[in-house]
Parts: sequence; structure tokens; C-alpha cells
Amino acid sequence: MNFSSDNVTPICPEILAAIAAESDASALPYGADDKSQKLDAAFSELFGRDVSVVPVATGTAANVIGLSGLVSPFGGVVCHHHAHINVTESTGVAFYGGGAKLLGIDGPSAKIEADALDAYLTNHVSNGMHSVDPECVAITQSTEFGTVYSVDEIQAIGSVCQKHNMRLFMDGARFANAVAALDCHPSEITWKAGVDVLSFGATKNGALAVDAIILFDPELRRKTEQNRKRGGHLFSKHRYLAAQLLAYLEDDLWLRNARHANTAAQALAKSLSTMGAKPAFVPQGNELFIHMTNALAEKLRDAGIVFRPWPSLGPDAYRFVCAWNSPIELIEALPETVGQ
Amino acid sequence: MNFSSDNVTPICPEILAAIAAESDASALPYGADDKSQKLDAAFSELFGRDVSVVPVATGTAANVIGLSGLVSPFGGVVCHHHAHINVTESTGVAFYGGGAKLLGIDGPSAKIEADALDAYLTNHVSNGMHSVDPECVAITQSTEFGTVYSVDEIQAIGSVCQKHNMRLFMDGARFANAVAALDCHPSEITWKAGVDVLSFGATKNGALAVDAIILFDPELRRKTEQNRKRGGHLFSKHRYLAAQLLAYLEDDLWLRNARHANTAAQALAKSLSTMGAKPAFVPQGNELFIHMTNALAEKLRDAGIVFRPWPSLGPDAYRFVCAWNSPIELIEALPETVGQ
Amino acid sequence: MNFSSDNVTPICPEILAAIAAESDASALPYGADDKSQKLDAAFSELFGRDVSVVPVATGTAANVIGLSGLVSPFGGVVCHHHAHINVTESTGVAFYGGGAKLLGIDGPSAKIEADALDAYLTNHVSNGMHSVDPECVAITQSTEFGTVYSVDEIQAIGSVCQKHNMRLFMDGARFANAVAALDCHPSEITWKAGVDVLSFGATKNGALAVDAIILFDPELRRKTEQNRKRGGHLFSKHRYLAAQLLAYLEDDLWLRNARHANTAAQALAKSLSTMGAKPAFVPQGNELFIHMTNALAEKLRDAGIVFRPWPSLGPDAYRFVCAWNSPIELIEALPETVGQ
Amino acid sequence: MNFSSDNVTPICPEILAAIAAESDASALPYGADDKSQKLDAAFSELFGRDVSVVPVATGTAANVIGLSGLVSPFGGVVCHHHAHINVTESTGVAFYGGGAKLLGIDGPSAKIEADALDAYLTNHVSNGMHSVDPECVAITQSTEFGTVYSVDEIQAIGSVCQKHNMRLFMDGARFANAVAALDCHPSEITWKAGVDVLSFGATKNGALAVDAIILFDPELRRKTEQNRKRGGHLFSKHRYLAAQLLAYLEDDLWLRNARHANTAAQALAKSLSTMGAKPAFVPQGNELFIHMTNALAEKLRDAGIVFRPWPSLGPDAYRFVCAWNSPIELIEALPETVGQ
Repeated sequence: MNFSSDNVTPICPEILAAIAAESDASALPYGADDKSQKLDAAFSELFGRDVSVVPVATGTAANVIGLSGLVSPFGGVVCHHHAHINVTESTGVAFYGGGAKLLGIDGPSAKIEADALDAYLTNHVSNGMHSVDPECVAITQSTEFGTVYSVDEIQAIGSVCQKHNMRLFMDGARFANAVAALDCHPSEITWKAGVDVLSFGATKNGALAVDAIILFDPELRRKTEQNRKRGGHLFSKHRYLAAQLLAYLEDDLWLRNARHANTAAQALAKSLSTMGAKPAFVPQGNELFIHMTNALAEKLRDAGIVFRPWPSLGPDAYRFVCAWNSPIELIEALPETVGQ
Repeated sequence: MNFSSDNVTPICPEILAAIAAESDASALPYGADDKSQKLDAAFSELFGRDVSVVPVATGTAANVIGLSGLVSPFGGVVCHHHAHINVTESTGVAFYGGGAKLLGIDGPSAKIEADALDAYLTNHVSNGMHSVDPECVAITQSTEFGTVYSVDEIQAIGSVCQKHNMRLFMDGARFANAVAALDCHPSEITWKAGVDVLSFGATKNGALAVDAIILFDPELRRKTEQNRKRGGHLFSKHRYLAAQLLAYLEDDLWLRNARHANTAAQALAKSLSTMGAKPAFVPQGNELFIHMTNALAEKLRDAGIVFRPWPSLGPDAYRFVCAWNSPIELIEALPETVGQ
Repeated sequence: MNFSSDNVTPICPEILAAIAAESDASALPYGADDKSQKLDAAFSELFGRDVSVVPVATGTAANVIGLSGLVSPFGGVVCHHHAHINVTESTGVAFYGGGAKLLGIDGPSAKIEADALDAYLTNHVSNGMHSVDPECVAITQSTEFGTVYSVDEIQAIGSVCQKHNMRLFMDGARFANAVAALDCHPSEITWKAGVDVLSFGATKNGALAVDAIILFDPELRRKTEQNRKRGGHLFSKHRYLAAQLLAYLEDDLWLRNARHANTAAQALAKSLSTMGAKPAFVPQGNELFIHMTNALAEKLRDAGIVFRPWPSLGPDAYRFVCAWNSPIELIEALPETVGQ
Repeated sequence: MNFSSDNVTPICPEILAAIAAESDASALPYGADDKSQKLDAAFSELFGRDVSVVPVATGTAANVIGLSGLVSPFGGVVCHHHAHINVTESTGVAFYGGGAKLLGIDGPSAKIEADALDAYLTNHVSNGMHSVDPECVAITQSTEFGTVYSVDEIQAIGSVCQKHNMRLFMDGARFANAVAALDCHPSEITWKAGVDVLSFGATKNGALAVDAIILFDPELRRKTEQNRKRGGHLFSKHRYLAAQLLAYLEDDLWLRNARHANTAAQALAKSLSTMGAKPAFVPQGNELFIHMTNALAEKLRDAGIVFRPWPSLGPDAYRFVCAWNSPIELIEALPETVGQ
């Protein structure tokens, strides 16, 4: 069993079928095809309001291009120190943002707290054009530590952003897992809470390679698409991005896959607890961070379980990630299989 | 029949099968999987020397990231005025090149001629760090007008580059069509002629979305990969890029597809000539540029033939592009079908 | 006598005095001092309408920062092939413009002709976000070849810009020489003709180091100042920029210096003609481009006359530049002094 | 008395005289003049080894251009959270560094401590090209809080940099004040301790506008000069930068001015202490940060004393900066003059 990441999984059958179904006919390139033309409507229905959709092939592209419309080359993006954009996306935000700067703040379990954000923004001493002043806040849902912002928490952050005239970006590489965990309508944790742009992840949750930039502010479309093009992210065979996304939405596949992954993570948390591991955070999505002894880690490895050490949480910390195809029964049987 | 571009085609069966075959197992992300690890060897065998392979999903990404290793932020890239990097890739070269500048020159049928290049470089008046001095030459093979540089022509360009201490880049979005047309070994028009970096296209020739940056200078790898990552082009499910490329090379699929497309283009040229069209250039690859009357254009459209006007060649100019799946028999029958 | 450039001259006495006069008291930094606060009013009076003034220390900075407000990172700036921004300012326009591209066109004596510009813009084939579409036109007044656009010529260019929805930038490193040559009001060749931003040169015409970015569109101020700051061009002792500029405007020093330089250039043209040199262009400002024999060039050099070869105009071409301190009587006596 | 900053001061007489002395003759532009050609030798003598000197007009330019040679577009610069480059230079480091990122760390009185730096670099979890890995360390001497690194402290930082293969940059906007405070040879706190590049400030210490980038690694010259040019910082009348710097070095003017400023700061600290102010840090250079009551602040203001609140140190914190022209006797008499 491989829990090293959700990106080690293959394409899920429904999405593979959708790709295969494209193989008979010609289609206009660069998003002019029928499927691509349906994306705005499909996501508008999902979110309960008009949205603009700009698909790209990777989560990093979705984040850095999505953010580029919300911050000037002279401005800052407030994010958690552990944010993916801050620690795992090279200097991509500055690249697409023309120099824009990440401003890291702290918070428990990779979450920004509304009060702390308010204090940070209130205490920020602007020195006019000498200083880099915050223009945007970026949060990750579900977070880099497998936790999930509640509806109230996001709405509180949105209020703080409104108070300080900040734009709000959401890295939703694992957005589906958050919605599944909260059992809420996707609108409640996005535009209704003030989110301007969402990167809506699919790659980690069953797709081959597609994440959608969802723009709740239609005026951002042109610049976002220009950045996509000149960054080399505009697919000629754009229909294959669209086909993946439409299949992902159809019959709530995105939610079904995410629910499966979350359920597997809960089962895994239970199994590992039984064996003596301690959760670093209460797992809510599909990621699980635990502390365990070397002995237990070795025993798991011997049983063919794959997972990653997570040194930023300590020498005894590890990450396990479940996915749409995680074998829940085998996970439940782990304590027995591995032996305690 | 749709001749508007080769990017309107679906995935070819062999590559679709390779994608589907990935669907059973987990694989390490970001290029650490088995298939990705085979890419260097596979392309090294193809080119008859050690090469480094950096796959990306689009041709624009392959060009602008591939070029970024060959030019400094203060330098220029000499290319044909009609080069794809100059007219169809936004400001991508300056973006990834940190400000690097395109220096357009002329030449017949979208080709740079070695003598003209030599004269341009000789006559360039450098003003030290005030001026943007050429550091790199970029050619497209096959060209934006469907013509193909001969082996001699490329070697002559390579010699001029060596004389003037220029790096040499090749936009090979339709490299396969050029090799098929020349019936040469791929090495003869690349590293043996002095090419430092090649973008090796697959997307237009049967893949879903993958073009490979081929580095003949291994020292370029690190910077190229860094630019790929921060540009958002490093696939987590990298194996799907690798699977496409390996299938593309297997049993010379790349050449078979290209030969089919070229043959179709020759047949189309013949059929259109019969109907009164005049070729703008002698077609060698899979693209055909012609002049024809409005009456003929209308007749073709009425018969369901799709193609694009090409205003930069005049008001009566059009482009037709054939591909791996072009129906040669129907093309040959065009004069009869459409009526003259 | 040194005619190699107008930048070889020292500071003129009036400006040196203004700098020295600052030496007694403290003053607020970064433009908050009294003198800096007078700049907008002083230039508004000069131009006969409200303008915003952003001073910097070099002509390149004035051009590339001034332009940065008029073009997006995805757009093009149409300029003459021989424009200073195109041949002598490294990749500065792309740097401050976030990737913006220079699009060179031809025209006699380094001038863009309104008809040719109209044709260029009309014939430009936009390919949506794939192509780099012109957003701005940049002209130089007086030009890089010492010629001067007439009021009518600039107004015609302004009309073409308006027709095609282009912004209009003027590189006025030698703006004073142009106004002196035309004997017109500065407004006639700037905002009344549609110029949005002017770099108003002083360094070459008597200052130590200051060129002013003149914004005729007040909405450009913020971005222009932000680019100035982060480019490292915001002087802490900003008053020394202001003091130079105010002295430069006082009693029309700028025009007096320019008239002197222009008169000297006319005298020099006459003297060199007498000796057999042929003007490459009819000189109007303070720059003179000529063709002459090696023998004459050598004779001049032997007499201690300093000037520069200008290879882009041919192997027998040379540039002579006069300035505010050129010794007109000695220039008139040249044929006699040097001997013919 | 104006203590709001050292940049409110005028030019000191010696430097004004040097500028005035340039006013009689022509000189080659762009650094080819005699005075500019002497800079390398003059600074090499000062530092006791060969150095390359690249003058610019502002401290921000010296920092951001100086740093650009030490960090790649994908790398990080470790600096103190309170570093001038981090809080007062907009996004200049990312701009000239092509995206390079500032990585702020803590430390008492704006100093980085060698042990803390070592721990930071040791604990940094590199994720290959996903993460931004530190490539360079930047320290400020004297610091943003008026303290001074001892020779030992800088050597310890240099050793940590060597251990972790980091380049070392020093922001020396107030370098003279540090050398004056330490009474050391300038080499001891620069290249002998491993500093690769120093921005050697003069503007705040008596010059009109010049700070010199001192390169202890000659290979950095070309890129540094290229960045200077395309950033618009290459002066045509470069001799005026050189004249200022040569006068600044002559007869140790730089040290004499700095010693005066430091002495004034000590006197001011004493006077303010007498009146009840508490120093926030032990002042060593020419800057003084204190806590005082509103009553005292008001009394000082009423007496015409100008200074700035410093909110990042608390609501009762203020900054006073002395300079080359601070009136020491008046400062000593302050308690008496103002009344207690």
C-alpha cells in the first residue's frame, strides 16, 4: 500500500473513459471546442453563481497563475508559513506575480486564524511605496497538514480580508476533501465567504492532470488567461482538460472520490493509533500526520507500507496520504496484518 | 475533413493505450517513476548520444523553457520574423528568459539562410552592455510555412553559430515531419549540426499533451528543470508524460505518424493543385500554404473541408494541415468529390 | 573640442549653483521637501496643463520606467528600429515592463511616419492572446539621427495612435533641442498631440543627472512611482533632483542651452561641409551625422577634434554632438584652423 | 535640529567641491573617464586587496543590484526580518534577482546571530527544486537598529556561510559608522570574514547620491554591470559618481564624517537619558532608538527637535539619527535647552 502521496495514484476509470471517448473526432483547439465551452456553465452550476474557469495541468500552475490576478508586482500575499505556495512551489508566485512577495504567518495545524490575521494586518506598518504591503491573503483548504477550515473559520477570514481590503485566494488542491469533510455546499467556503479565486484540484483526486482556476470575479479572466498563455499552459488539445473536468463533476465524482479518500484516512488513523502512533493533528481530509516510534515505522515498511518522513514536524513525524483508490478493508486490517 | 491544424486531432491509439496501461498501479511522482527514468536512455538511443530529457505538456512550454537555458536576461535570440516563438507565444521567451529579446530576421519560406545569418551577426554593432547582443539562434524544423531545412542547410547554420559563438535552438514542434521528409537520422539535423537544445514535439503528432525538451548539453539540465518547476510545468503524475513519449518512440510511431501526415499533405497539395490552387511554398512536411480564389475556397467549405485563412501571406492565402489520421484516400478523391 | 556626445559635458553653472545652494539646510527625503513639491506646478505651468512629474537620474530610467505604465507584460511597444530604447537600453523595457516587447519598424532618418505606422497597425494580425499585440507607440524627439518631428508629424502620429487605441510615449532625452528647433510651445508636440508620457531630458543639456518622467495621465502616477522605487531610483536626497530641474526650467535655461547646442550644430555642419563632409541627414537638433573621407577624419583627429564613428550608417559615417557649452566661434573657425 | 534621518542632510563641503571641480572639462561617459578608472585602485587600497567597484546613485540600487549576482532566480536570501532589503526596498530583490526570495529570520537588535543562522540553515528542509533553498545570507552593518556587529560576530557568520555554502552580502549603507565604531580595518569585517559583496554607502554620510557596490569576487562584475545598465542605473556622466567617491575616500573623509555622526549619537543618547528616555538598544553607530513618554516627546518637538516615531518597536518608540553635520555642542546642551 502506497500512502506517500495522492499523486502516486493512477487516473480513475471515469476520467480515463472520458479521455478515451475523445478519440474519435476532431475538435477546435485552445478551448474553442464544445466540451471546453461547457466548463463555465458546469462550474457555475456547481457553485451556484456565474464563474469563469481557466483550466491548467498542474496544481502549482493553478495556484501561481490564479494568484497573479490578485496581487501587484509591488504587493504581498499573506499565507501560512507552511503553505504549499510558500514551501513547495519554488519562486513561482514571484515569477507570475512580477515580483510579488509571500508574507508568511503562523497558526496551528497550518491554518491561518482570523484573529491572528486581523492582528497581523492591523500591525503591519506600511511605509508607502518603500514597503511591501499585503494585498491578498491565501489559504489552503484542506490544509497542508490535513486539517480543514470550518465554514465559520473561512467566513471569519473573509470578513477580515474585507475589513482590510485584501483579496482572498484559496489553494484547493484538495478542495474536494474539504467539502467532503465539511459536508457543505462549495459556495459556503468560497465566494459566499469572500474568496475571489480558487484553484480547484482534480489531479490528486483521480484526474490525469488538470486543476481548474475558478474566478469568482469575471474581470480577472483576461489577465489570468494571458498569464496562462505566456506561461506555456494553454493546451492546444484543451478538450482533454475539459473532458477530465466534466467527468470529474459528473454525478459528483469529485465528491465520491474525496469521500472515499477521507474515509480511508479515518480508517488509517484508527489502525495506526491502535498500533501506537499519535496523530500530530486531528485528521479531517485525506492526509494524516503522525508521530511514531522507529520500531513501528520499520514494521510498517517491512509490511510493504509506503509513507514519507515529515522532518518539519520532527524526527519521528510521518505523512500518510489516502486517495480515491485506497483499499479501506486492507487499511482496517492493518493492525492484524502487520502485527502489533 | 478538418485541416485547420494538427492540434485538432485526437490521441492516436498507441498513445491512448499507453495512458490506459498506467491505470493499475501506483508510481512515484515528479519523474521518479520507472517510465520517466527510462526517458534519457530512450532518447539517447534515438539520437545516438547521451541526452537529457525534460518533458512538458505544451509546445510553447518546451520552446520557452528550452530556450531559457541558452540566453541571458540581457541577450538576444535571433529567429525568423515568422517564428512561432516570435508571433504565437505571447511574451513567453522574455518571461522565462528574464527579459531576453527576440531579434527577428527575414528569409524565404520562414527559413533562416546561413549566409544571411552570418551577415546579420557580422553586421551587428555591439555597444557593450548598452545593446542587446545575440547569444542564441532559434530555427524551426519543419518551419512555420511547412518547409524543411535540408541537412546541409542546418549544418551551415550550425557553422555560422559556431563562428559567432552563438548557441543553437531548434523548435521541433513538427520535428518528426522534418525527419520523415528528409529521411535522415535525427542526429544529423540536431547535435551533429550544433543544436544545443531541441523541443521535440509529440502533441501535434498523436499525443495527448507532451513535448520533450532534449538537452544535448547536460549542464543545462538543472536550470531547465528549475524553470520547469517554477513555471508550474512539473507534472506530479509525470509518468503520464513519460508513457506518452515512450509509446511515441516505440516502433518508430513518431515517424510513422509523421510519414502519414506528410504523405497526406502531398496528396492534398496535388488535389488542390488540380482544382486550381497555387502553393505558396513547396510543401515538405505536413503543412500546406496555398493561394486560391474565393470561389474555390467556398466550394471547399461547402464540401465540409475545414481550413484557415492565413492573412500574413495575403488575402487569398490559406493553410491546410494534415496529421497522423488524415484520410489519404478521401484527400486523393477531393477533386472528384468537390467537383471542379 | 569634444563632439563625441553631449554627455561628456560638465554641469552648467546655473545648475551647479542650484546644487550648491542646497548645502545649508536639512530637507525632507524622498520628494517630501519643498523643492520637490514644486515640480508638478513648475512643469504644469510649462506645459499649460496639469502634469505629474517623477524625476529619475538617467535617461534610460526615465524611458523604461515611463514606458512601464503604458504597456502590459503581454503587449508590444512599436518603435523605430533605431530607437534608443531598442538599441541602447539593454533589455530595460522588458525588465520594467514585465516582459513587454519592442516591435521595431522602419522610417527615414529614425522617424516613424504616420502613414507607415497606420499601415503597420492595420496589417498587424492579432492572434488573440497568442500574439503580442501593439499597445503603445514610442517616438524620440529629437530623433536618434538628429532630426526633429514637425508639429504636424507628431499630431499625425497621435491621430494614428488614437485610431488604433495605442498609448503614445515620447523619449525626450533631447526634447529641449526639438522645441528649440521647432520654436513651438512644448504642449504642441506632447499632450496636445496625444502624448501620454514624456521623458524630459536634462542630463545631456546641462544637468548633473536628472531626467523627468512627465505624466499627462495622472492615473499613471502610482504605478510609475512604484516602479521607480523598486527599481532603486527613488532618491533619498530627492531635493537634489528637484533643484536641478527647477534651475533647468528657470528663465528658460533648458531652451537657452538647447538653442546654443543647436546653433553650434548648424555651425559645425557648415564648417564640415566646407571641408567636404556630406550630411547623412539634415541636422535639426544638436546631433550631426555625416559621411566623410578617412583623410578628413584623420585631419580632424589630428587637430584634437573628438567624434565617434557610426558604423550602422556605413564605414564612412560619423556622429558629432554639440552641447550647451560648445564653442561656436571655434567651430566656425574650424575650416581655417584645421586646414582644408 | 533634525534627527529624522541622515538622508535629510546636505552634501558635505568636500564632496560638493569635488563635484564643482568637474565643471571645467569634458570627460568620457559611462565610466571611461579618468576618475571612474581610478575607483578600483582606490577601493582596492582601502580594502587591502583587489576589488571591483560598481557605483550607483542610491542605497536600494546598491543592495538589490549587488545581491543579484549572489542568488539565482530560484533561490533564497536569508536576512533579518528587520533588514532594510526586507522592509523598505519594495520588491526590489525579487525584481533584480529574477524572482529570488527573502527568507526572514529573527535575532536581537536587528542582528543575525551565527548560531541561530547555523540552526536555520541546518534545519532547512530542502525539497529539491520544489523548495526555495537559501543561497545567500545578507547582513546589515551597522544594523537597522543602530547596533554594530563585532569583528568576531561577522567572522562567525562568515564561517557559518562557508559551512553551508552560502554567499555573504553586506548592506553597508552605514558601513562607515560601523568601521568608525569598531575602529577596525574595513577588511576585517568584509572579505576577510567571507563577505562577497558589500554595498558601501556614501549618500547618508555626506555625498549627494552615490553608493558603491564593492565586489570581492571579480567574476561578479559582468552580471552586476549588466543589471546596473538594464536597470537604468548606469550614469552617462559617471565621473560625478566617481568624483563623489574619490572625495569620500580622500583623507578618510568617510571615517571622519562617520566618527562625527557616531560621537553625536553618543552625546544625544546621553542627553536624552538625562531627560528620562530609555534606549531600546545600546547605540553604537549613528542611529538611536529610544522609548520615552509622550510628555518628553512633546517637549522635544516644542523645542524644534525633529525625529520619527518607530511603531515597529512600540507606541512609545522613536528613532533619532545623527549625521556628519550634527551639532554636537547643541546636542550636549539639550537637557538644559529643552528643560527637564
